[in-house]
Amino acid sequence: MTGHVVALCGGVGGAKLAHGLVLALAPSELSVIVNTGDDFRHLGLYICPDLDSVLYALGGVADPVRGWGRADETWTFMEALKGLGGESWFQLGDRDLAVHVERSWRLAQGSTLTEVTAHLAQALGVAVRVLPMSDDPVRTRVLTVEGWLDFQEYFVHRQCRPAVRDFAFAGTEGAAPQADALAALERVDLRAIIICPSNPFVSIAPILALPGIRSAIQRAAAPVIAVTPIIGGKAIKGPAAKMMAELGLEASAAGVAARYADLIDGFVIDQEDAGSPPSAAVRIFSAATLMRTVADRLQLAQAVLQAADTLAL
Amino acid sequence: MTGHVVALCGGVGGAKLAHGLVLALAPSELSVIVNTGDDFRHLGLYICPDLDSVLYALGGVADPVRGWGRADETWTFMEALKGLGGESWFQLGDRDLAVHVERSWRLAQGSTLTEVTAHLAQALGVAVRVLPMSDDPVRTRVLTVEGWLDFQEYFVHRQCRPAVRDFAFAGTEGAAPQADALAALERVDLRAIIICPSNPFVSIAPILALPGIRSAIQRAAAPVIAVTPIIGGKAIKGPAAKMMAELGLEASAAGVAARYADLIDGFVIDQEDAGSPPSAAVRIFSAATLMRTVADRLQLAQAVLQAADTLAL
Repeated sequence: MTGHVVALCGGVGGAKLAHGLVLALAPSELSVIVNTGDDFRHLGLYICPDLDSVLYALGGVADPVRGWGRADETWTFMEALKGLGGESWFQLGDRDLAVHVERSWRLAQGSTLTEVTAHLAQALGVAVRVLPMSDDPVRTRVLTVEGWLDFQEYFVHRQCRPAVRDFAFAGTEGAAPQADALAALERVDLRAIIICPSNPFVSIAPILALPGIRSAIQRAAAPVIAVTPIIGGKAIKGPAAKMMAELGLEASAAGVAARYADLIDGFVIDQEDAGSPPSAAVRIFSAATLMRTVADRLQLAQAVLQAADTLAL
Repeated sequence: MTGHVVALCGGVGGAKLAHGLVLALAPSELSVIVNTGDDFRHLGLYICPDLDSVLYALGGVADPVRGWGRADETWTFMEALKGLGGESWFQLGDRDLAVHVERSWRLAQGSTLTEVTAHLAQALGVAVRVLPMSDDPVRTRVLTVEGWLDFQEYFVHRQCRPAVRDFAFAGTEGAAPQADALAALERVDLRAIIICPSNPFVSIAPILALPGIRSAIQRAAAPVIAVTPIIGGKAIKGPAAKMMAELGLEASAAGVAARYADLIDGFVIDQEDAGSPPSAAVRIFSAATLMRTVADRLQLAQAVLQAADTLAL
């Protein structure tokens, strides 16, 4: 089957499937729409954690061991910054820092986030279109038992410890979805829309909160398929399962499928959960969703594309 | 002799004598006024080359081999920036970068350059007062045969190649000298004012161009003594001798003494030039002005203080 594939994703987990899709498809066949809700300014720098995770994964420069940031990283800047009494709760590798400085500088010069992202993608050898969900600032905020926290304050500084009650995506009302992202969702040759195994609350929800995105997905004739970020009731990485429990939801693949109920035609669970598939209104597929190797990424991408093509029949 | 000593200096050469003075005096006995005319914004960062050279020398973290920047430096950021197509004409070490980021961030938060410098000095273990010449931006510009150039464009990017015709210090009219710097020059217990072996045109002249500084030095009852940055007709470092030749001045210690004629009571030449002392209206002293080791710095500082004390008799 041919046609264009659109992937929605957040950081590390989603980036791995996006990488698998890059390996499975021609560059012109894929657009990746990336969450920017956890972008923030830190020490005067404009940091886009999810865009960077995607660019690093797709450019083959992600650190394979640490699970975030760049390979061959050094930490001299951070060590020196600590020596100056600077803020050290957000780790900035020397190599990673080059991306933040170059991006911040180009934005200050008047480039859009889309333009800067395209430049960085080219410099890192990424041929597919990596699109920020919006050029307008949208900021994820987390209502916890201790009150509202900015996302990075919650996620990095507080290490997701305070129990969550709700989320808000400040700025979505006035924000426009990135034009090419919306256009990609509206393509007549669309083969599939894939919701990557990213956190439903803080990675995918901000994208869906942008005006026009949710309805474009609902209108699309192509199959919409999501991949679970939860295996055996546990998040592969990050706080998704913890959040679901704190919100009184079922911390399971079925719980995630339920959140996407009005959007998806199919849902991919892990083969480990295949014995007790969720009773959902959508078609359930099972696959090896844990991506330990690059080969795992390609294999899952192929399985998801196959599932989507099945749904299109 | 006791009393307060004020040193005026630019970057590397002046910083070495300032370090010698730190070793010779108690912390409360010295104020160092530093040129900020070559400060500039680069990649969105606020960089103060002379303040950094002074802080690194006084904090004992300057690189002893390279002659600029920090010891134990790494260059990962710069390498990664080049990989992203970023501007690479100005070298930024990973450790050095921490100072630029922390300074830029604190300035953006509303701190003055004086406050930020005091913080950095404390963090680097510098106990004497290191004062920017002004909290207001003053920018050295260089008129060359190719037209006006910003200082760093001339100094780093063009490596001082275009012949100079004149200098301007944009912003001096509206700029106030740093209050503690002016007050230090006006102290009643002043022991000496020392003009360090820095470039007279682009390191010392910007300080003297600030309203009130020149007249405060002229009014001071304490001896004013300058140390030559030129030995045997050659600058120890940097373009001072080249500039003098291009301006049609005598590229010698005498030429430097002549430039300070209305300000100084004494002038320290190198012992190498002692055979043919300049015929100047001021008292000439000779000393070993080439500072290769830390001991050389202390020795020169002691010689300069002794010369000043002689002038005060």
